Amino acid sequence: MRFRSVLVANRGEIAVRIVRACRELGIRTVAVYSSADRDAVRDRLGDEQVHIGPAAARRSYLNAAAIIEAALQRGAEAVHPGYGFLSEDPDFAAVCAANGLTFVGPPPDVIGQFGDKAAARAAMADAGLPVLPGTGAAVEEAEARATADDLGYPVIIKAVVGGGGRGMEIVTAPEAFVAAYRRTRDSARLLFGDDRVCVERFLAAAHHVEVQILCDDHGNAVHLGLRDCSVQRRRQKLVEESPSPVVSAELAERIAAAALRGARAVGYRGAGTFEFLLDADRRDFYFIEANCRIQVEHPVTEMVTGVDLVREQLLIAAGHPLSIRQEEVRPQGVAVECRINAEDPDRNFTPSPGPLAEFVPPGGPFVRVDTHAYPGMTITPHYDPLIAKVICWGPDREVALNRMDRALAELRVAGPGVRTTTDFLRELIAHPLFRKGVHTTSLVDRVVAERQPQLTGSTT
Amino acid sequence: MRFRSVLVANRGEIAVRIVRACRELGIRTVAVYSSADRDAVRDRLGDEQVHIGPAAARRSYLNAAAIIEAALQRGAEAVHPGYGFLSEDPDFAAVCAANGLTFVGPPPDVIGQFGDKAAARAAMADAGLPVLPGTGAAVEEAEARATADDLGYPVIIKAVVGGGGRGMEIVTAPEAFVAAYRRTRDSARLLFGDDRVCVERFLAAAHHVEVQILCDDHGNAVHLGLRDCSVQRRRQKLVEESPSPVVSAELAERIAAAALRGARAVGYRGAGTFEFLLDADRRDFYFIEANCRIQVEHPVTEMVTGVDLVREQLLIAAGHPLSIRQEEVRPQGVAVECRINAEDPDRNFTPSPGPLAEFVPPGGPFVRVDTHAYPGMTITPHYDPLIAKVICWGPDREVALNRMDRALAELRVAGPGVRTTTDFLRELIAHPLFRKGVHTTSLVDRVVAERQPQLTGSTT
Repeated sequence: MRFRSVLVANRGEIAVRIVRACRELGIRTVAVYSSADRDAVRDRLGDEQVHIGPAAARRSYLNAAAIIEAALQRGAEAVHPGYGFLSEDPDFAAVCAANGLTFVGPPPDVIGQFGDKAAARAAMADAGLPVLPGTGAAVEEAEARATADDLGYPVIIKAVVGGGGRGMEIVTAPEAFVAAYRRTRDSARLLFGDDRVCVERFLAAAHHVEVQILCDDHGNAVHLGLRDCSVQRRRQKLVEESPSPVVSAELAERIAAAALRGARAVGYRGAGTFEFLLDADRRDFYFIEANCRIQVEHPVTEMVTGVDLVREQLLIAAGHPLSIRQEEVRPQGVAVECRINAEDPDRNFTPSPGPLAEFVPPGGPFVRVDTHAYPGMTITPHYDPLIAKVICWGPDREVALNRMDRALAELRVAGPGVRTTTDFLRELIAHPLFRKGVHTTSLVDRVVAERQPQLTGSTT
Repeated sequence: MRFRSVLVANRGEIAVRIVRACRELGIRTVAVYSSADRDAVRDRLGDEQVHIGPAAARRSYLNAAAIIEAALQRGAEAVHPGYGFLSEDPDFAAVCAANGLTFVGPPPDVIGQFGDKAAARAAMADAGLPVLPGTGAAVEEAEARATADDLGYPVIIKAVVGGGGRGMEIVTAPEAFVAAYRRTRDSARLLFGDDRVCVERFLAAAHHVEVQILCDDHGNAVHLGLRDCSVQRRRQKLVEESPSPVVSAELAERIAAAALRGARAVGYRGAGTFEFLLDADRRDFYFIEANCRIQVEHPVTEMVTGVDLVREQLLIAAGHPLSIRQEEVRPQGVAVECRINAEDPDRNFTPSPGPLAEFVPPGGPFVRVDTHAYPGMTITPHYDPLIAKVICWGPDREVALNRMDRALAELRVAGPGVRTTTDFLRELIAHPLFRKGVHTTSLVDRVVAERQPQLTGSTT
């Protein structure tokens, strides 16, 4: 390992995750924190801790200058951006390099290319990956509307830049198109400072699958199988698993090969995820985007493969070759992750932050918990509402899901004002469609609808 | 699964462990507790909870009548005894059967045979297993002394019944023999109500290895590889791992085959452990005892094999065939367990129970924690001082040990009067002999000696 010290440019559970990987490699860590996280800073967030600004993310966790300054001042040699915040900002990656800091992630030009959905789609189509029919590049209103009419509804209007499921709108009928187009432009401008949008066919009931890849500087590239993330609410993933329950080994191999082909075509380096939609009959798959960072759901891949992805990220960034060859990747069993959010499922998933008077994670065989929470800690309203990730493994999906139900039942999170998604997740994973593994991206809406109190009674 | 409800005849972390396995199988659980554990009873200890007596174990956790009554009253169909307490009491197993309750463990006669060390040694020798030279059966003082002189010192004097590292004494010179013989008889009478003792050659620096086996009622028997438990203090294990770092694959196969031969010879059923000593040059191995129960260190085997041993115990007891065949057992990587005890290593490991004002377990990738502890819970002085087991996995031993060091550094256990073995364990696993994996059962004494403050200073 080349790095003696790494700055962790993030917060919450992923900051803890990165610190853990660093410690196991003998690397010192420099944590940064905003005023909102001041009371939550503990040594598991880093060996040294630097305050970088007030609560507002753009003045702290998105404040590149303050982060670079902290890294230089404390002698960090690399910066790990985690997910979200600056993790997919090509300018930040470039500024790190300009300051002699290794950015733990792909080269800036690769990040830039995947950050522009139109450019990414074009590059991947050139590399031979199937993409959804659509405009490809950014289009003006009239052309957009014409394309939509050609494609047939529903279509999705997407900001060309941005991600994380924001800056997108689905249009189900021609008459709704223009208003939706304008709203998406407006929100894209507001969210990402770039109002270009593109239009694509939308698969209303699809399977969301993604391929975890690792590429080093020595020409090695491996995939670590698929994750299925079809359990989404407003394009936010709630439950993820590996492998996908709907994809045959043969199809999984084809999808993974496509991801590796795309990665090689752009000179990818580091850990990355290639996301695909699979139509409901599981015949055709389409590249939708690549994420140039570690993902929230990476632990399910770790549990089935035994590969520590954050460790690999650090080793790759330090110039080491991959620690594993493709033929050594032999996934075992099934892993499932549930995201425990401080949200109230009975109030449309409104965030419900607050102090955690009680926090007891589940444990025991084949259960993993990734969290920054501890008893007495406060979930702040300033950032995402993720409290903890619970990941369970089993030799087969049924055992893994029974274990997850057991683990979620054990989890204790309580505090004044804090509601969590735990019970909702238990309902989700107990749903017959999910249990059978035939659910699509429409599952969550269905479960939400089913749990609404019946307003009209039956007459029998 | 045949059982709708199982009574868990134990306490602490192993009771939680059994409840977890039951829940994942859809089995209701009945927990029993003594007055000393009244405040520590939480739902993760069982769906129903029955008070069975005062703190003294013989009036609660060893009170067979009270436990049977609770099982019958609450409609439990089986009893899981965990480890310790009644787990290796053939009479208890027989009483369960007489009351129509399935005892989760081997048949009473098998337990009885292994509970008598002389009988076990004879049976295993008959089955072709190597045993240490010694008297075999119980011997009177004069014959014992003559045998010891023949064998050469050191020798070990052991109670014929009993276990758990108690009722044993090592004699290093002939003149100390008679006093030690008498002390061992006395303590055997006191501890186990049976003053018969036997004498064997003692291997001062040996490797303690053991084979995990599973046998069902359908003639199937598998082994799940070896555990190395050479890190012991007064024959209490502190750190365990799988596989053994000192045993070649070929030797491991021979030792495992011996264990299975022994198990088949006596008609073993359920989960069991065959313990062996391996001499310091790792040439010869000797059967020492078999444990007819789940063991504290079972999680290391689970982490390398993916097999849930407690689940298997329950399935076997319900008449199911083993869920795995020998050729499907493919251990991956290395797992290590550290036992976190409420003991003060600076005061000769005196128990230091008390309330846990703070309890934050470690987490993250490839870390498992088995515990009954939670913030605010009190470690009672009445039973063993085990607070938690931390188990870490890695693709190789170095990663697993670095991970363990990271996990132990994360663990937070604090409360008035409570000291733990955590820092001592970190020193142990950092010791060069342990790191190299060439340590023997003499390691702990050495580390204890090395950490004593230097009373005589160096003159340079």
